[in-house]
Amino acid sequence: MRCLITGGSGFIGSNLVDRLLSLGHQVVVVDNFSTGIRSFLKNACSHPNFRLLEADILDPPSLAKIQNAMEGTEVVFHLAANADVRFGLEHPRKDLEQNTIATFHVLESMRVCNVKKIVFSSTGSIYGESKIIPTPEDTPFPVQTSLYGASKLACEGLIAAYCEGYKMQSWIFRFVSILGERYTHGHIFDFYKQLLKNHDQLKILGNGHQKKSYLYVQDCIDAILIAIEKSHDKVNIFNLGTDEYCEVNDSVAIICKELNLDPTLSYTGGERGWIGDNPFIFLDTKKISSLGWKPKFSIKDSVLKTLRYLKANQDNQDILTMRQQDT
Amino acid sequence: MRCLITGGSGFIGSNLVDRLLSLGHQVVVVDNFSTGIRSFLKNACSHPNFRLLEADILDPPSLAKIQNAMEGTEVVFHLAANADVRFGLEHPRKDLEQNTIATFHVLESMRVCNVKKIVFSSTGSIYGESKIIPTPEDTPFPVQTSLYGASKLACEGLIAAYCEGYKMQSWIFRFVSILGERYTHGHIFDFYKQLLKNHDQLKILGNGHQKKSYLYVQDCIDAILIAIEKSHDKVNIFNLGTDEYCEVNDSVAIICKELNLDPTLSYTGGERGWIGDNPFIFLDTKKISSLGWKPKFSIKDSVLKTLRYLKANQDNQDILTMRQQDT
Repeated sequence: MRCLITGGSGFIGSNLVDRLLSLGHQVVVVDNFSTGIRSFLKNACSHPNFRLLEADILDPPSLAKIQNAMEGTEVVFHLAANADVRFGLEHPRKDLEQNTIATFHVLESMRVCNVKKIVFSSTGSIYGESKIIPTPEDTPFPVQTSLYGASKLACEGLIAAYCEGYKMQSWIFRFVSILGERYTHGHIFDFYKQLLKNHDQLKILGNGHQKKSYLYVQDCIDAILIAIEKSHDKVNIFNLGTDEYCEVNDSVAIICKELNLDPTLSYTGGERGWIGDNPFIFLDTKKISSLGWKPKFSIKDSVLKTLRYLKANQDNQDILTMRQQDT
Repeated sequence: MRCLITGGSGFIGSNLVDRLLSLGHQVVVVDNFSTGIRSFLKNACSHPNFRLLEADILDPPSLAKIQNAMEGTEVVFHLAANADVRFGLEHPRKDLEQNTIATFHVLESMRVCNVKKIVFSSTGSIYGESKIIPTPEDTPFPVQTSLYGASKLACEGLIAAYCEGYKMQSWIFRFVSILGERYTHGHIFDFYKQLLKNHDQLKILGNGHQKKSYLYVQDCIDAILIAIEKSHDKVNIFNLGTDEYCEVNDSVAIICKELNLDPTLSYTGGERGWIGDNPFIFLDTKKISSLGWKPKFSIKDSVLKTLRYLKANQDNQDILTMRQQDT
């Protein structure tokens, strides 16, 4: 099939690109490289079924080019987003523009080009601080606690309304944090960078008891492809995660052991790492599991794979540009 | 208290303005008169505690004026919106701009001006086609079916995230359709206009069996004021409706009887009046009722009051500018 992937040079996007190409699909990537990394598309760029369009979904003149590239597309994977959860409060306009309004532009472009299928990367943050844990897709109507979650909620609402109004079909995935090769931000990244600078000190946001769930990127992509193949409702919503969670402290222990380090730990304190941080994210994945999917890798595997990837790339300045300790 | 009301020249807004003035509050109305009606503010304009600022929340130069007017405000009642549910699919950008982005601008203005309290007019449309009827506030996470509902969902998410992130407080009201004096669009309006033109024919969207709930505007305002007084969570969400519903056909019967007419009824057919129409809207109002509120008027009372208002104003061209049969 012919696919268009926004944000295709990002962590999850570029892994998806490689997978789709390996499965024989045609892939067009639309990316503005605001946070994407060109080298992630190095292999893809030499593939005959691949095309890269450097364009910004928020830029009106670019939209015509994007719509041009979209002609004949069967499915749009809309992964482009501001994924900067922690610092949302410092620039509230960013989530609105790069998530909500960008998604509107993607949907409008699809409408113009008569493209009927959209796959969307949403987030478990959309559940705010759910009282039901593990949290199922149909948990009681949540109250948002972050601008990031609110913007993804807005995107989901737009996508569902477009499906109803313009006879489109969507697959919406609410991710836990994804780990693995090409991982470029999050707590492992931050811990690794801190320890690279100073072997003896590690500063941890919150009290370290925040409970989080993680999923390996290839398991995530397996789930996406299985859901598209097997689930055919108008709006298909799936949590993606593993059936386990760990504390930030557990993650710290795995990392320190792997690196053979024993730093002094200091904590900023409090149940949450930052305002809007959810101290316990653990998603119910029965729905995606019922399609026959299960993750091949544990949280520990994913943390180790991520860490080994970072070690192997520790001299790559593209990748080691510091982001933040947010998930 | 000092209040700022966006959309204060609209149906609900202008009734709220009059009530707040009668209670001794200071009121600033911000309105661009895109759908508001100046004569609704005639009495307010002669009141010493009233001030009108003609400005558009979406217009950057106007925002500075709005923020100037906002200084010292205790609570913002954000009622300005595109309330045109039925025709959303004909102009998908309108809900995004006039609801989602406009609400973002209001919240940003509040943040700049250090205003901490916001009251927001949301909608029962946010529940999509809920399977749980009557639908409570914490019903399972709904899937959107209209651009209008999706945009109000986005607004709710933004408001809740601002409350969490910037220590604001909000009261979010999910309305059924509101009826009463100054009603300017909806099915009663449309039926009345049709019958005014032709006593013998009435065209009804859908099969007439759509079940809807309605609330009288003064009951709605009572509920808003009681909630602000008595509910003090960070984010206070309330359904507003009556504990009854009626079919569109019931409403038609009340109207025809009151007008002493017996038109031939024709139906466009189908369970829904239009794409995205919810064939059964009935909200659970236990939460607002638990604060001691109950509506003084039945649906029948509300329909009759609305009809009498329309009859008394049938020569007022401002009011009888046709809108649509949407709720």
